[in-house]
Amino acid sequence: MNIGVIGLGYWGPNLVRNFQSQPDAEVWMTDADPARLQAAQRRFPGVRAADSVADLLRQVDAVALATPLSTHHALGLQALEAGCHLLVEKPFTDSVAAAQELIDLARHKGRVLMVDHTFLYTGAVRKLRELQEQGELGRLLYFDSVRINLGLFQHDTNVIWDLAPHDISICDHLIGLEPLAVQASGARHYSAQEDLAYLTVFYPDQLMAHFHVNWIAPVKVRRILVGGDRRMVVYDDMEPSEKLKVYDKGVELTRPEEIWQTLVSYRTGDMHAPRLDGGEALTGMVKDFLHCIATGAEPLCGPAHALRVTRVLEAAERSLREGGRPVEIQP
Amino acid sequence: MNIGVIGLGYWGPNLVRNFQSQPDAEVWMTDADPARLQAAQRRFPGVRAADSVADLLRQVDAVALATPLSTHHALGLQALEAGCHLLVEKPFTDSVAAAQELIDLARHKGRVLMVDHTFLYTGAVRKLRELQEQGELGRLLYFDSVRINLGLFQHDTNVIWDLAPHDISICDHLIGLEPLAVQASGARHYSAQEDLAYLTVFYPDQLMAHFHVNWIAPVKVRRILVGGDRRMVVYDDMEPSEKLKVYDKGVELTRPEEIWQTLVSYRTGDMHAPRLDGGEALTGMVKDFLHCIATGAEPLCGPAHALRVTRVLEAAERSLREGGRPVEIQP
Amino acid sequence: MNIGVIGLGYWGPNLVRNFQSQPDAEVWMTDADPARLQAAQRRFPGVRAADSVADLLRQVDAVALATPLSTHHALGLQALEAGCHLLVEKPFTDSVAAAQELIDLARHKGRVLMVDHTFLYTGAVRKLRELQEQGELGRLLYFDSVRINLGLFQHDTNVIWDLAPHDISICDHLIGLEPLAVQASGARHYSAQEDLAYLTVFYPDQLMAHFHVNWIAPVKVRRILVGGDRRMVVYDDMEPSEKLKVYDKGVELTRPEEIWQTLVSYRTGDMHAPRLDGGEALTGMVKDFLHCIATGAEPLCGPAHALRVTRVLEAAERSLREGGRPVEIQP
Amino acid sequence: MNIGVIGLGYWGPNLVRNFQSQPDAEVWMTDADPARLQAAQRRFPGVRAADSVADLLRQVDAVALATPLSTHHALGLQALEAGCHLLVEKPFTDSVAAAQELIDLARHKGRVLMVDHTFLYTGAVRKLRELQEQGELGRLLYFDSVRINLGLFQHDTNVIWDLAPHDISICDHLIGLEPLAVQASGARHYSAQEDLAYLTVFYPDQLMAHFHVNWIAPVKVRRILVGGDRRMVVYDDMEPSEKLKVYDKGVELTRPEEIWQTLVSYRTGDMHAPRLDGGEALTGMVKDFLHCIATGAEPLCGPAHALRVTRVLEAAERSLREGGRPVEIQP
Repeated sequence: MNIGVIGLGYWGPNLVRNFQSQPDAEVWMTDADPARLQAAQRRFPGVRAADSVADLLRQVDAVALATPLSTHHALGLQALEAGCHLLVEKPFTDSVAAAQELIDLARHKGRVLMVDHTFLYTGAVRKLRELQEQGELGRLLYFDSVRINLGLFQHDTNVIWDLAPHDISICDHLIGLEPLAVQASGARHYSAQEDLAYLTVFYPDQLMAHFHVNWIAPVKVRRILVGGDRRMVVYDDMEPSEKLKVYDKGVELTRPEEIWQTLVSYRTGDMHAPRLDGGEALTGMVKDFLHCIATGAEPLCGPAHALRVTRVLEAAERSLREGGRPVEIQP
Repeated sequence: MNIGVIGLGYWGPNLVRNFQSQPDAEVWMTDADPARLQAAQRRFPGVRAADSVADLLRQVDAVALATPLSTHHALGLQALEAGCHLLVEKPFTDSVAAAQELIDLARHKGRVLMVDHTFLYTGAVRKLRELQEQGELGRLLYFDSVRINLGLFQHDTNVIWDLAPHDISICDHLIGLEPLAVQASGARHYSAQEDLAYLTVFYPDQLMAHFHVNWIAPVKVRRILVGGDRRMVVYDDMEPSEKLKVYDKGVELTRPEEIWQTLVSYRTGDMHAPRLDGGEALTGMVKDFLHCIATGAEPLCGPAHALRVTRVLEAAERSLREGGRPVEIQP
Repeated sequence: MNIGVIGLGYWGPNLVRNFQSQPDAEVWMTDADPARLQAAQRRFPGVRAADSVADLLRQVDAVALATPLSTHHALGLQALEAGCHLLVEKPFTDSVAAAQELIDLARHKGRVLMVDHTFLYTGAVRKLRELQEQGELGRLLYFDSVRINLGLFQHDTNVIWDLAPHDISICDHLIGLEPLAVQASGARHYSAQEDLAYLTVFYPDQLMAHFHVNWIAPVKVRRILVGGDRRMVVYDDMEPSEKLKVYDKGVELTRPEEIWQTLVSYRTGDMHAPRLDGGEALTGMVKDFLHCIATGAEPLCGPAHALRVTRVLEAAERSLREGGRPVEIQP
Repeated sequence: MNIGVIGLGYWGPNLVRNFQSQPDAEVWMTDADPARLQAAQRRFPGVRAADSVADLLRQVDAVALATPLSTHHALGLQALEAGCHLLVEKPFTDSVAAAQELIDLARHKGRVLMVDHTFLYTGAVRKLRELQEQGELGRLLYFDSVRINLGLFQHDTNVIWDLAPHDISICDHLIGLEPLAVQASGARHYSAQEDLAYLTVFYPDQLMAHFHVNWIAPVKVRRILVGGDRRMVVYDDMEPSEKLKVYDKGVELTRPEEIWQTLVSYRTGDMHAPRLDGGEALTGMVKDFLHCIATGAEPLCGPAHALRVTRVLEAAERSLREGGRPVEIQP
């Protein structure tokens, strides 16, 4: 299969490297900046360069878009129109309408459409999902994520569009429900874009997800808490090992039928850090894309997932612009 | 001086113990529950017991209230009317109106009114304040607090009124500005009261404070980040030593006059964990109360501070009840 | 039962408090320093004071010795001669000969003799022992302990006699074998006694135990590694929770019959932090002492255990004095 | 300059990569295993391959040896005889005699001889050395190193020769004194070689260094404590940032003239984590080698340093073989 990577900035070369290492994959690449393309040619002598997107589209069956967010919609349409399967770097698009248009065209053309939410392919998130599916966590109560450190400022977007897609994607993957509403607040200290923000997503039955994203924090934190009524999980991505800790802890209600007499007690049991599969997550993502093309299977981060994530991002943006009021989501 | 402690539940005995160890302080105590009063008499044989609040008020010059929140207003008025100086356990009152009434009466009677925000007397918070006053932190950008663990559920209040006063008080002590608005969201999983909540407080000039309080978290976290444009601080109260870490980190803007050309760069310098004064914070609080009575000095957590904290709590409550919309604060 | 505590310095009052809280225990106490005795009387109004050891011995059935090490032998003999059961604060005695004499006399008199190795009664050590007894750890490979921090210097002993008994006791409790030899090295920087030292104990079958004790370290570390060929454990006593972490990790040998072809591979599985029983360890020790007196049962830290620990300490001292040469132990 | 890398196993390709990135360096490489050489040629198309060591030596001015320890002596002699400057991978040689022979030949031939003790070029060790040279640490009291984890077993050497050279080199770099004696103990659980060991090095004035190296530990620890009488340092190489923590802590002796009256007190001040230079340490090492060739300057890990490290290793080996007795070092 011929695969073309468009955009060779920060992330594109990682896609090139991973596609190149797949058997039976012939890789093409291009970039609007000739200097970047030349640098990539030196680094990947076995990969073919195309002078333009149009040129590349004539050669390939599938396209991976690693260009700036503002170009995803137009380039994605162009690739699908050319009959290509489409992998888009996160964030997917800058609006729900653009996302929907790409999804509709992919369906109409019978092509695979997938967004690169790489974290879904990590050993930690796969194990977390497995625990949830097996009922180990019980009913989910909350999802709390902190993703902060110093930098890297993006010039064309704010900290929510830059960092939150990772965590919203993990949250959606775990919860799998349509969100009801989103509330967001942020501050702009160093540019016209928010450099720190808090995001709350409301689901049915009091289930809440909350995200703290910050480009100007002195320490690097990548931590997710998942509270279930059977077990609770801390996923700390900065830990070199034991990234996932499962706590057999919880709250017991005695005599809940008599609400005024309810006695709350605590259950504290063992903690368990399951062994996680290693391997580069991006490799798993690339394999999944190729597998879905070959078999017609549904990718982990296919249209439905990508659309829900985009809805949350768009609603968060609106909440930010409207002074932090909660914004309902129309599914 | 004669000091009376009213309420001998969880916190009251700590006040008794600390007042008792002060020179020239004669301590009285009472509780509506005779069994509790007897238990306290066994524990503190040198402290005098009063049969009722009225009885106690006839004996003392100053009163410390460690009763449930709902009683603070009435008992506080009663103590002030009796001519006593007044120390109130946090949270101060359940409404701004009640707080204002107590403050007005204290001023009218010429009595000291103070709220027991014990954390302000810890070595860590005193050092933090000192750093801020000396300009070490520069202009404040954000205040982010996480105070979570499993339990202890309160029956008559939610997690915000229970846990957030500590952090709102620390934040106000550091920032010292009137907040503009408050937004809060929460979930009620185990009772009719929120057991987890997020609270955002908006100040002028994009300065934001955010608070995460949670009774159903698997791990105990007590961590505050303070971002300044000169230095940033992590205050981790779970650390046995080095609770305060000061990072010489920040963002540099080059050519800020040409907004489209702005280059953001990062400054990363040393980290510094200053030695903190030890000593029990509650002892410092008790000494400050007695000192203010003796000298007329202004306590660290006097009326102005207590009122601002109460305004934030009341606005957070309203935001919770109104679906998470931001609520403006009228100073 | 009447119990007498001799010595009211640092640890004695803890023994008084714990014995006093046991049902049916009448507690007496004495100290060679009248000021200390008076201070203890103020703190424990319900405990009877004796003017001298002889006076106390006339009143009690059992004695707990919390005096300096150099007095253990003489006072222990005196107590046993008076017909008392005997609990001795660690370290037991300053020589194997003295230990043996106390043990022989206790056996002759039919009295319980026990050393206060409090750590054996912690939830962590009890769970560790349980794992080992159930075969969870497999064959033991090594025991490695680090117990370091700044201070507290003892004037009459070195850092080995002060700190290492805790860890040697835990090690012996787990391993339960006669040691073959001991090697020790140390340095004396601030007094005529070693303020830091390393101790190695050799057991059969290449099993090794190593102890690092240090009074002049900048950080407080209390960490034990136990390597077994099935599982390995890290016991970190500074962790507020999850003190014990059990790693399903190890080494696999393939084709061990062909030694030159042996392939070593690694097995890495889950990590598990079992819930530990809470409760004050000293209370468990006190209950065990009373239980053994009442029933004739063997205490956890009875004569055999205490003797092996003393043998290691004495041999370590000799190794230190002889330039660090390994010293064989004669059982 | 033409540089030849001999040995393309685990470490050799890192040397190739680093030499290749230096300006004016023409790199050659060879390996006794043709398959390895071919793999390296695919990875480094710009580097020239030589069929044999003799072939390579005809082309180059300097040689880097990354072959097994047992070959260092013979290949090193061959390279020096051919007139080449010589960089040897650690450990330098398997005996002091072999080390001395290489050093003598290098001096005779006027060639640079250097051992790749990469850690000396890390930001952390450079800062540590700087602190010591500036007198910040005061008089050194002890050096304590722990370097443990699961694997990687070496087949032709034990854990001391594999892991300890890193730490002995750092220690020697800091202390710069001739050691007096060495004592070592170890256990062999999975092969004929020690898989865990403890090593003590004695210096004048009670200064002690201790090393714990272990291939069968469940956790990865890379931690060095350095105790000075002015400040103490923890160097934790597993920390992603703040690897070096400098504690203003120590012991104060009052009235030291009256030894029986000496009062020991503790000084506890700030902790400080200096910013460390980044950059790959191996690059610094390679630059130093080229710089010394060009200028005749003395490398950080030149003959004197390498010889002292080898003396410690050889003495440790002898102590291991002789049952753990301390072995004196003859400078």
